[in-house]
Parts: sequence; structure tokens; C-alpha cells
Amino acid sequence: MTRILGLSGSLRRGSFNTGLLLAARDLAPEGVQVELYEGLRDIPPYDEDVRTAGFPPVVEDLRRRILEADALLFATPEYNRSVPGVLKNAIDWVSRPPHQPFDGKVAAIVGASPGALGTALAHYHLRQVLSVVGVYVLPAAETLVGGAGAKFDAGGLLIDEATRNVLRDRMTKLVDLATRLAPRV
Amino acid sequence: MTRILGLSGSLRRGSFNTGLLLAARDLAPEGVQVELYEGLRDIPPYDEDVRTAGFPPVVEDLRRRILEADALLFATPEYNRSVPGVLKNAIDWVSRPPHQPFDGKVAAIVGASPGALGTALAHYHLRQVLSVVGVYVLPAAETLVGGAGAKFDAGGLLIDEATRNVLRDRMTKLVDLATRLAPRV
Amino acid sequence: MTRILGLSGSLRRGSFNTGLLLAARDLAPEGVQVELYEGLRDIPPYDEDVRTAGFPPVVEDLRRRILEADALLFATPEYNRSVPGVLKNAIDWVSRPPHQPFDGKVAAIVGASPGALGTALAHYHLRQVLSVVGVYVLPAAETLVGGAGAKFDAGGLLIDEATRNVLRDRMTKLVDLATRLAPRV
Amino acid sequence: MTRILGLSGSLRRGSFNTGLLLAARDLAPEGVQVELYEGLRDIPPYDEDVRTAGFPPVVEDLRRRILEADALLFATPEYNRSVPGVLKNAIDWVSRPPHQPFDGKVAAIVGASPGALGTALAHYHLRQVLSVVGVYVLPAAETLVGGAGAKFDAGGLLIDEATRNVLRDRMTKLVDLATRLAPRV
Repeated sequence: MTRILGLSGSLRRGSFNTGLLLAARDLAPEGVQVELYEGLRDIPPYDEDVRTAGFPPVVEDLRRRILEADALLFATPEYNRSVPGVLKNAIDWVSRPPHQPFDGKVAAIVGASPGALGTALAHYHLRQVLSVVGVYVLPAAETLVGGAGAKFDAGGLLIDEATRNVLRDRMTKLVDLATRLAPRV
Repeated sequence: MTRILGLSGSLRRGSFNTGLLLAARDLAPEGVQVELYEGLRDIPPYDEDVRTAGFPPVVEDLRRRILEADALLFATPEYNRSVPGVLKNAIDWVSRPPHQPFDGKVAAIVGASPGALGTALAHYHLRQVLSVVGVYVLPAAETLVGGAGAKFDAGGLLIDEATRNVLRDRMTKLVDLATRLAPRV
Repeated sequence: MTRILGLSGSLRRGSFNTGLLLAARDLAPEGVQVELYEGLRDIPPYDEDVRTAGFPPVVEDLRRRILEADALLFATPEYNRSVPGVLKNAIDWVSRPPHQPFDGKVAAIVGASPGALGTALAHYHLRQVLSVVGVYVLPAAETLVGGAGAKFDAGGLLIDEATRNVLRDRMTKLVDLATRLAPRV
Repeated sequence: MTRILGLSGSLRRGSFNTGLLLAARDLAPEGVQVELYEGLRDIPPYDEDVRTAGFPPVVEDLRRRILEADALLFATPEYNRSVPGVLKNAIDWVSRPPHQPFDGKVAAIVGASPGALGTALAHYHLRQVLSVVGVYVLPAAETLVGGAGAKFDAGGLLIDEATRNVLRDRMTKLVDLATRLAPRV
């Protein structure tokens, strides 16, 4: 069983990006389990003094879940042409010593937006940050779901077949990468 | 009187970056007042549903202070080669409709770090974000205070004369830019 | 008279980006002259040994033209989500000692592409590079002309009225910025 | 036998970056061959009209050598906080249809500079570009050789033992990555 942890950069109820992760969970190939991380809202602002005293439990939990995952799937909106601060703040916490749970993980990045232009700039900032913390991000595959308003139904279900196929393809590639780069025991 | 609002990207007590802003306040040229923003810790995680219902008071306060400032001085550490999530999160809030307080402002970016390499990568991500929200950032002037441990005394006072001169110079340039780009009434 | 030097990042005959500059030349407000730089093809690959021996004449010419311009207008395609190497190579030459002609200049960036997504990522890499060499780039104003195939006629004339208006607006803002930031004599 | 193609972003005789590649060639582990690409100077400026008519022989040669390599080792200086235009120009050529030789390759990036600050900003722009063209770049491992003047002897030989060890380590990791990600036949 390959375990993918899905992280959405949006806190909005009915977020298209969270919707992409829900769709990924439904569409997961056999042998693959997608779990959604839902604690982002509770991660406190990063404070080095707090960290020195000990990670807050909510941060410890996220660190553990990333450590235990075989692969990460980020679905992120673009705020001011970059990564939402809330998502970056979570990464700032997770990446800190004594051990660094991201190290050696594999990840894919997807993103949805109402407009046509998509979320490419946020993706490349996120790619840079993830490469810094030791993550292998699937190259080339920009997954930019524009015009998202028409691709989800009123209940937040991804109904656009082309996008569903793209998500299946990304998960297949991600699982292949995770398998190839799995730590040797 | 030119009013500079200083924003530190670090919440750490005794932060070198906050220290740079304290020094800037002391060193402000005549006719210039540097005010420190100290509410970063209280800015909630950006949530579009919350925003739609109305800005939280702490966000309204930051928006007003940015709107009223003649210039902005950012002092930011580098986390994972990018902007701290907490600082980006504050910018995400401030930049949202109905009006956008950053639009047309001028800013300078400085940064301190214990190591030699400095905070240049965070600066360039921050520059990009600020340009997106309509801010004129002083070009060229990278203010990267490396080896910060030796440049502040035990009380957090900036004692390195070269760095103090750099801060004076940046404020002079920033005030000149603010004057030239001031809205015409 | 305000002199704008237009630099296209594309060498293609019939380039949409060069077409934007030709349109800008036609649309220049009264008192503004747009001149096109057409020597990009002849700039040799940057070589520090050559530079030490002396700038090639074609580089000296570009340096002089940038120095004499009041403002710069870059029209650039996006190659592999970044600035075309040929354009970056020219900037590498111009930025070198003994003096740096870019220092203190003002610039705007525009870009056209056949697809919908536009050239935003190239713009932000170019913005970063220009900020490094001391240029004030108009913030906020992303000028991304997508679907360019339908916006120019067979002769390469920009016929899309909305885009023509955007170009006029950018030149007005650029001239205002150049005026405000002009060196004081 | 694993074949690593080394590409230097500098044309300078006695370039520290080319020196890193020469050292890598000497230090290659058993079963690994490092070959230096020396044609960068002859790559013409990218021109879409020329490409449409057919790749110049020098470009065809580079495309073939990248296609045949098992791994790529980039050694690049930083010009204006980004990738040298000459190196980006070569990538622009190689990445174009009908086939894209970079797709699925693995790479590492190293860089040397006389100053302390190193070449990290160029590395991250290069990382972004390489990810766009489908390359897996070794994450985390920033190889920034500062103070290069003291680490090479007068003949351009890398004499700094720590840096030699870093190069050995990078090659070991790169070969491991190439092995894991090798196309399955």
C-alpha cells in the first residue's frame, strides 16, 4: 500500500484545491491510499522561541504524518503570485531540527483557480521551497486547473473528466517515483 | 514628517531582524519617524471565508497602518530559502479587496542572519510578492547582514558601525523614493 | 522629449513581442519617442576574458543606448518559464563594470504569446534580474497578451484595441515614473 | 558505465566553474565517466525561424550528447543573481521539439565564485528551468563553493580537500539517482 498525504493550501470551505485532493482520494489507483491533512488551520505562527521549547502537538502530528507518508500531494492556490503564507508557515515548522521529515520524500503539486491563468507562479515558489527541504518534486508536470468554477459541481465534486484523468496520471507517476526512490532497507 | 512602518518577519524575542528595525528607529534621519509593527503574531491564518465575512480587527489595523505609512521597511529572515510563512500570510490579508493598501507604496528590504550566506533568496521572493501588490522596492540595494551574532550586543543593540551606516543610507534612499513617488494631491 | 528604448527578447521575424514594440512606437503619446533596439542577434556570448580586453563595439553601442534612454520597454517571450537566454546574455554584458548603464533606470515589461497562459514567469525572472542591476520596474502591471495570434494582422500590426489601450496606459505610467525618478541636475 | 555530461556556464579560460567539472572528471568514482561539454561558445542565439528550418549542427550535437548522457552535472556562475544567458540560451535550443532530450534526465548543480555569497540564486533559477524541461535535480544539496580563489591552484586544479569530497559525494548521489530513475527497457 502506497500512502499519499494530501495537503491543501486553502482554508476556504468548498475550496477548489481541497476539491482536487478529495477527487484524488476517490480516483486513487488500486494499492494507493490518499489521506487528507486537515489541521492546517491550527498550525500556529512559526516562532523560534516556541520551537526551542518544543514543537506544539499539532506540529508534531503533521511532522509524523509527513514522515510516515510515501508521497505528498500539494494542492495550492496562488496568493500574490506565490505560495499562501499558511502553507509556507506549516512547511517552516515541519522542516526544523532535530530531524527533517521532508528529507527524501517525493511530491507532486497541483492547483486550481477560477481564472484562466492558473497557479503556475505559486507552484514554482513551492517547488523551490520543497527542493530546499530535500523533496523530489515531479518535474515538467504542471497541473494547472483553470476555470475551476465549471469543473466542480455544486457539491464540490470534480466532474471534469479531463482533469480527473490528469489527477490519475499524476498519482501514477507519483507512485512510480515513490517506489523508485523508496529508502532501501 | 515621513512615516516609515517597519515590519519584521521574525517572532523570536531578540530577533536580529527586529533588532535591525529597532536600530533603524534610533538612526532615523531628522524628519523621519520609524514605527514598529508588533501585531504579526496575532494575524490569523488567511481564510477566504473569514475575509468575505469581514476583516478581523487585527487585520484592519495592519491595513490602516500600511495605508497611512509613507514607506515600508521589511526586515526578514529566510526560512527554507524563502519568505517566512507568517510574513507572507500577513501580506495575503492586506492585499485583498475592496482596496489594496500596498498599492503605490515604496519599500526597502533588509535582513540579518547568523550565517554568512544571508537572506538574499527570501528577499527576492519578497520583492516579487511586493511588486505584485504594487509596491516600488528599492532596487539593487541588497541589505544582507551576515554574521549577525557579532553585530548586536547582549541587549540586542546593533553595535556594528558599518551596518548602522548601511541602515542610515537605506532610509535616506527610501525617503527620497517616497518623496518622489508621493501621490499628487 | 522622453526617449523609451524598446528591447524584444525574440529574434523571430514576425515576433509578436517585437510587434508589441512596433505598436508602442506608433502609439507613443506626444512628447514620447520609442526607439527599437535591433542588435540583439549580434551580441556575442558573454565571456569574461573578452570583457576584460574591452567591450565589443556592438555591446558598447547597446550600453550607450541604454545609458541615453529615459526609460526601457522590454517585450519578452517566455522560454522554459524564464527569460530567453539571448536577452539575459545582453543584460549580462550591459551590467558589467566600469559603469553600469542600467543603474537608476525605469522600465516596464510586456509580453505576448500564442497560448492563454502568457509569459508571467519570464516576467518575474526578468523583474528580479532588473532589480539586481538597479532598475525600477513598474510594479503590479502585468502585461500578458495571450492568444496573440488573433490580435495581430497578417502584416504584424497590433489590431486588438484593448491591447493597444493597455500599451498606451503602460507608456503613460512609464513616462510618469521616468519623470519622477529622473536624475536631479 | 554511468556517463555524466558536465556543462559549465562560464566561457572564461581558467573558470572556477569549469575547474569544478575538471575536478569531477578526476574524482569520478569507478564505473563513472565524466565528459565535459566544450561547445557552449558556438551555440548561436536562439531564433525560432532558424529552428523551424532545422537545428544547427552544433545544437544537434549538444542535443545528442544530452540524450545519450545518464546524468548531467551543471557548474554555473551567477550573473545578476540568475543563470548566465549563454547557458540559458543553450537550454532554450535543446528543449525544443520534435523531441526533448532533457526529459526524464537527472542532474546536479554546483557553482563556484570568488566571493562569499556564492551562486545560490542562479542555482534556483536553473533548478526551475530544469524542472520545466523534465529534469530531476538533486534536492537539498546546494553546492556553493565560495572563496574559490583560494581553493584552486595556479594551474586551475581544485586543491581544497573539503570541496573535492563534496564533489565525490554529489557524484555518488547523482549516480544513485540516475540508476533508480533509469528508463526501464
